[in-house]
Amino acid sequence: MIDYSRFISHVAKSIKASEIRELLALIRGRKDIISFAGGIPDPVLFPRKELAKIAGVVIEKYGDNALQYSETKGIIEVRETLSDFLARKREIHVDAEDIIVTSGSQSGLDIVSRTLIDPGDIVVTESPSYLAALGAFKMNGARLIGVKVDEHGMRTDLLEDRLKQLGDDVRRVKFIYVIPVGQNPAGTTMDKDRKKHLLEIASRYDLLVVEDDPYSYIIYEEGAEVASLKSMDKEGRVIYMSTVSKILAPGLRIGWIAAEKELIRRFEIVKQYVDLHSPTLNQFIVAEAIKTGVIDDVVSRAVPYYKAKRDTMLKAIQENFPEYVWYTKPIGGLFVFAYVHKPGFDAGALLEKAVKQYKVAYVPGGSFHPEGDGVNSMRINFSYPSHEQIREGIARLGRMIREA
Amino acid sequence: MIDYSRFISHVAKSIKASEIRELLALIRGRKDIISFAGGIPDPVLFPRKELAKIAGVVIEKYGDNALQYSETKGIIEVRETLSDFLARKREIHVDAEDIIVTSGSQSGLDIVSRTLIDPGDIVVTESPSYLAALGAFKMNGARLIGVKVDEHGMRTDLLEDRLKQLGDDVRRVKFIYVIPVGQNPAGTTMDKDRKKHLLEIASRYDLLVVEDDPYSYIIYEEGAEVASLKSMDKEGRVIYMSTVSKILAPGLRIGWIAAEKELIRRFEIVKQYVDLHSPTLNQFIVAEAIKTGVIDDVVSRAVPYYKAKRDTMLKAIQENFPEYVWYTKPIGGLFVFAYVHKPGFDAGALLEKAVKQYKVAYVPGGSFHPEGDGVNSMRINFSYPSHEQIREGIARLGRMIREA
Repeated sequence: MIDYSRFISHVAKSIKASEIRELLALIRGRKDIISFAGGIPDPVLFPRKELAKIAGVVIEKYGDNALQYSETKGIIEVRETLSDFLARKREIHVDAEDIIVTSGSQSGLDIVSRTLIDPGDIVVTESPSYLAALGAFKMNGARLIGVKVDEHGMRTDLLEDRLKQLGDDVRRVKFIYVIPVGQNPAGTTMDKDRKKHLLEIASRYDLLVVEDDPYSYIIYEEGAEVASLKSMDKEGRVIYMSTVSKILAPGLRIGWIAAEKELIRRFEIVKQYVDLHSPTLNQFIVAEAIKTGVIDDVVSRAVPYYKAKRDTMLKAIQENFPEYVWYTKPIGGLFVFAYVHKPGFDAGALLEKAVKQYKVAYVPGGSFHPEGDGVNSMRINFSYPSHEQIREGIARLGRMIREA
Repeated sequence: MIDYSRFISHVAKSIKASEIRELLALIRGRKDIISFAGGIPDPVLFPRKELAKIAGVVIEKYGDNALQYSETKGIIEVRETLSDFLARKREIHVDAEDIIVTSGSQSGLDIVSRTLIDPGDIVVTESPSYLAALGAFKMNGARLIGVKVDEHGMRTDLLEDRLKQLGDDVRRVKFIYVIPVGQNPAGTTMDKDRKKHLLEIASRYDLLVVEDDPYSYIIYEEGAEVASLKSMDKEGRVIYMSTVSKILAPGLRIGWIAAEKELIRRFEIVKQYVDLHSPTLNQFIVAEAIKTGVIDDVVSRAVPYYKAKRDTMLKAIQENFPEYVWYTKPIGGLFVFAYVHKPGFDAGALLEKAVKQYKVAYVPGGSFHPEGDGVNSMRINFSYPSHEQIREGIARLGRMIREA
């Protein structure tokens, strides 16, 4: 028998499987359990007919290119289309050369991490923040500093305090990672002053900012402040990332990064060895879906659809959760985040009981917190379950919390 | 102005852009230049109609799943299909749980590297070997040892010598990387004795073997010895990798790894943070293309098609190259590799002249050699250019070599 452990790298040994994905695997297909654990779109919004047509046309018409190897940076037609899309949707004005296509946001996070992080470098994130982003940063050797969020997004006053406390070590900070709109998991959105303050701080301390923006296309309140940091960035500090996962189809695995050319060039060289290039066919499909208005159509259906689910969830929470639960009221995105302010409440420890006894699942909030706090928190998704499931599931969760 | 260089990791600073890809970008669209530099399939072999139909059916029929997030390891139906495919085509008997789907071979190489290599570890490769594999190993901190190939594949006698010379450092060797059939770039195929010897050595020194197998489906000589190492592996030392890039369409970016469960589990955990999962849609398309015989059909068309091109190239080389050029006569794969045995011949230094004056391109062989030799070599691709281009291009290249 071979002892494989001697072959495994320190990095591989240090990382844990993602709780979310393990959990999802565990309860998959269990109809009796209502799950708020996912973060996935409702497939009813997938434009199946339109995509089937687009895929057929792309393969038949452009097959010589669409099925072939392509540029590491992304095919030029797609980058041009994304350049228009970013200008139109997010007031981000970059040309095609400032964009690199990635194999979903996760690969974007990994490529940014590998390009920027040396082992021992520091990454500042919101607390809580996106689990798989924290995982990518840690896998690439980063030490994490978490700055609390409130309903207005990252507490930039606290950010400044933490950077001051670092002293000379502040030079090890490579970037600040934020999801300004409809944050995963917190469901919060940064207000204008916080965004300005964040950019001021980045400038003062000479830091980069990684803006992860998958949710800003799905906003439930008209006139909400959702300007992207990148659109406010005068110094070239912001590395902007987004994806079609929430506005078209996550199974295509297409995302993109927009940043200064010098950075994009670095990402491109790393990407050559990471995955050579992102799937050509999927890039063509995304470009067509943008140009033919399919994405606009998905968004216009998704907004009222998810808004209604969010409303059902917030109402159910108000009716079922005890008053010592603090929770966010998201204006965008797919998640509500809750802190149970009751001594000893441990959402992670209670999960098994929740699933087995109460037949309801959520993601324990601890692992979203880069500094190990937040054991009393949970992420609750409203995009995937039905209204009926939301009402019943939140009632079950409310009972579980009261009886814990 | 921001000095971005202070933000770039040591790893990102240490890697260079791939010569092949830079070069291809440079001469793209130049109709006057005959290029042997690519390594890409002839798109005439892409089954456009069949894939257009499959994509349409998959999206319309299985869209809820095919457009959605999916398992990191790969969707189970696809892994089951690949399990059958490997048994049928390569006599590799693994079940679906021993397989992980990757975003092309390159991502497989990267994930294997990250899972196994600590900075300073050693990877043994053939010399020459696949450029982007060497790049992935180096990016992940490996020191490389190159063992010469001849017409029978890796010189395993030299392999043994090199391992002995390492002394205690042999414990830092994590794996031996080989492309046993239709090697890229050398065009060589390992014979049975060499394969047995390689596995014996791996066993004696307690090493893993990474078998990269993209070309074995395209074999030009009936009865050629092309058994996979994995099919001969009794100890669980072989990590087998392949891809649909040469037998269906590289633009889909779907590859796979077959190995012992314990290793697959490690790859899976790393992959969670690398790219979450490979594109779901593309996985469904590949499974359908296998099950409906589309891949078998491509292979049966590709073999005579590329064989004819290989024959044209070998004939042209025989007629045009001087006798001091040693070159391989591949029984599979897409490449001929040539060493110009003339003092001072530097294929890298001559490339610009070749392109500008002789209007012909190749890949200089130096960077395929992990230990810096091979400046007098070049990789010549015969899958993409037409017969006419092969004849004319090899004549130009012959002139260039004689006049150098």
